[in-house]
Amino acid sequence: MADRPIKELGGKTPLEAANIPALDEIARLGECGIMDTISPGRPPGSDVANLALLGYDPFVCYRGRGALEALGAGLDMGEGDIAFRGNLATTDEGGVIIDRRAGRVDGRVFEKYLTNIALPSYPEVKAVVRPSVEHRVAIVLKGKGLSWKIGDSDPHKDEASAKRVEPLDGSLEAKRTAEITNELLQVLKERLRGCPLNQRRIEEGLKPANIILVRGAGAPPQVKPLKELYGVRGACVAVNAVVMGVCRSAGLDLLEVPGGTGGVDTDTVAKAKVVEKNIQEYDLMYLHIKGTDNASHDGDIESKIRMIEKIDMMARHLLDNLNMDETYIAVTADHTTSLGERDHRGDPVPLAIIGPEVRRDEVTAYGERSCAMGGIGRIRGTDLMPILMNFLGKVPLYGS
Amino acid sequence: MADRPIKELGGKTPLEAANIPALDEIARLGECGIMDTISPGRPPGSDVANLALLGYDPFVCYRGRGALEALGAGLDMGEGDIAFRGNLATTDEGGVIIDRRAGRVDGRVFEKYLTNIALPSYPEVKAVVRPSVEHRVAIVLKGKGLSWKIGDSDPHKDEASAKRVEPLDGSLEAKRTAEITNELLQVLKERLRGCPLNQRRIEEGLKPANIILVRGAGAPPQVKPLKELYGVRGACVAVNAVVMGVCRSAGLDLLEVPGGTGGVDTDTVAKAKVVEKNIQEYDLMYLHIKGTDNASHDGDIESKIRMIEKIDMMARHLLDNLNMDETYIAVTADHTTSLGERDHRGDPVPLAIIGPEVRRDEVTAYGERSCAMGGIGRIRGTDLMPILMNFLGKVPLYGS
Repeated sequence: MADRPIKELGGKTPLEAANIPALDEIARLGECGIMDTISPGRPPGSDVANLALLGYDPFVCYRGRGALEALGAGLDMGEGDIAFRGNLATTDEGGVIIDRRAGRVDGRVFEKYLTNIALPSYPEVKAVVRPSVEHRVAIVLKGKGLSWKIGDSDPHKDEASAKRVEPLDGSLEAKRTAEITNELLQVLKERLRGCPLNQRRIEEGLKPANIILVRGAGAPPQVKPLKELYGVRGACVAVNAVVMGVCRSAGLDLLEVPGGTGGVDTDTVAKAKVVEKNIQEYDLMYLHIKGTDNASHDGDIESKIRMIEKIDMMARHLLDNLNMDETYIAVTADHTTSLGERDHRGDPVPLAIIGPEVRRDEVTAYGERSCAMGGIGRIRGTDLMPILMNFLGKVPLYGS
Repeated sequence: MADRPIKELGGKTPLEAANIPALDEIARLGECGIMDTISPGRPPGSDVANLALLGYDPFVCYRGRGALEALGAGLDMGEGDIAFRGNLATTDEGGVIIDRRAGRVDGRVFEKYLTNIALPSYPEVKAVVRPSVEHRVAIVLKGKGLSWKIGDSDPHKDEASAKRVEPLDGSLEAKRTAEITNELLQVLKERLRGCPLNQRRIEEGLKPANIILVRGAGAPPQVKPLKELYGVRGACVAVNAVVMGVCRSAGLDLLEVPGGTGGVDTDTVAKAKVVEKNIQEYDLMYLHIKGTDNASHDGDIESKIRMIEKIDMMARHLLDNLNMDETYIAVTADHTTSLGERDHRGDPVPLAIIGPEVRRDEVTAYGERSCAMGGIGRIRGTDLMPILMNFLGKVPLYGS
């Protein structure tokens, strides 16, 4: 949601240009500030950004994105398991990748060909492959002595061949895990190559999903659930797999979100209604909208502003339907995504918190620059959760 | 440049009292804040202050000033080498120091007496002595098993004798290095005592430079070059040895600065012209002016204001001659130096950043108090470099 000043908007940011009466109301009645999700100038990925917003220091707890993606896709992971994210992709007969997304195929139709996988040389290792959204899959390896310090098979570009997965440190565990992964990818390739679905896609002139590329090997973050840290019951209202994985690591319940798509066509008010319907069950609800980030990566100014205005409608619904005498709402972004650069940037994000006992300040509009003038000042991402839990009286006393 | 309110200036700081239209323009068109170079209230030395401004945490990387001074004076240092800074000084016949600066002698005329030094008891150790500016010298010891944890021979006052250099920890290395240094200082004393130049100085009624006092033993800071951290090519426009040493440690090229003196008589516009001439070759240029600090140490209010106005002329030249559609300029100070206290203080310094994608704020004047109202808020010295590199898109994404 956060951005830099845009020339086409007369030097305003999208947040400043958008019509956002509900967000402005939260800023006007609340206290405001700016926040470096990680640290000043450091662009965060979605994984570490959302870990930080839930109060976890990624420099301490983060162990790769793969496991977050797998947890978010609903796969279970035990201690010692590792996971990847992957793509169903298309290669030509010589093994050269011609589409890293296999025409954005819906991978779920391939699920039946990706179950009960046996690794001939490693019968003691179990592999679980789960298609998630579009061409994406999550993969979990279960077994003893696995390491997440291994590289990608995804070359991250078309017109190249899949890479052999290599160990990233000198450990025997990494060497063995790389070998296991290479064998798994070979098995998956053979399964896909011969499957009737791909035969049909070829006949229909579609790109076959004949290989799986993996990247971002990881283990679950080393975190304690928020329930243990603060004694709160929490829920996640999101559809993006990595955000759901972060929330699941934090021990939040993942709620069903009808109408949530993870894109610019998502139904933001439907998400607000999920909060409204479930809030009596929870102390904390983490509502994440992905669409503004997508619009930024596409460099689409109009779409980003429209998305921000949809977020404003969501905020309106929350303000009108929650009991604001006993509810705090914090509105922020997990990172700045620059429309101009079409990528994440390390500029701070705005923050506004409304609720019965906040120290209301003089800020009257929600935006990157207006919030910078607020009473919260400039904080780090990991500060947010203790600040919110403090309003609920849930932060344990330090000292005595 | 930064200071406290001065009674003689009607309670204004020198920056607030000076006429600085160009710096005000940078503040007005840019975003502003205040910065604790090290941490709130902590007065930094020039060495750690400039390390922090280049993004290096001195608590992690700093290993004494001596090596920075030596590197800045053009001496080369390898891993394991240590260095001191020193003064040519004058003692009476009983060895009591009567002038720690030997009448601010130009030490370079003594250089020929300070080469090819052999240490009788430590033939395996090589010593290099290099006079720099005025009475100052830099000394490097090269050899195995040296330690920078040794004390000074400089008693830091007149009317005292030079001290024996003592080890500062219990290590054998420190004990041996102290012994080596004491022998070196004895050899140097003998060389200077007998030299014809000093005979002539005595005949002319000048103070002989008959001893070298050393202080600030150090090893080079443990840092990675900015090129490795951010992929940027950088250059340093400074004449102060310690600042040049810090920049050299960071892998910046040291540019020739005609007209730069390191004092209040420096040609600030000449420095701006060095930037203008070379900027196409570099991503980052670090331009340091020392004169304001000198004026502050001298308690000279008028000189400090004049110096600040010369810095404003430099800023004017940069604004008028650089392509400001693609250039960011950050204006700050490495520390507050109090005119009243005539020394460094831990008050925060002002910061203004102008450039194409900054979030311009409401600040209209450059100064300690006006910048405190800006959109950047209050940051640490080590935050500055990532913030600037983020504007250039050079900070690697953390997470994925």
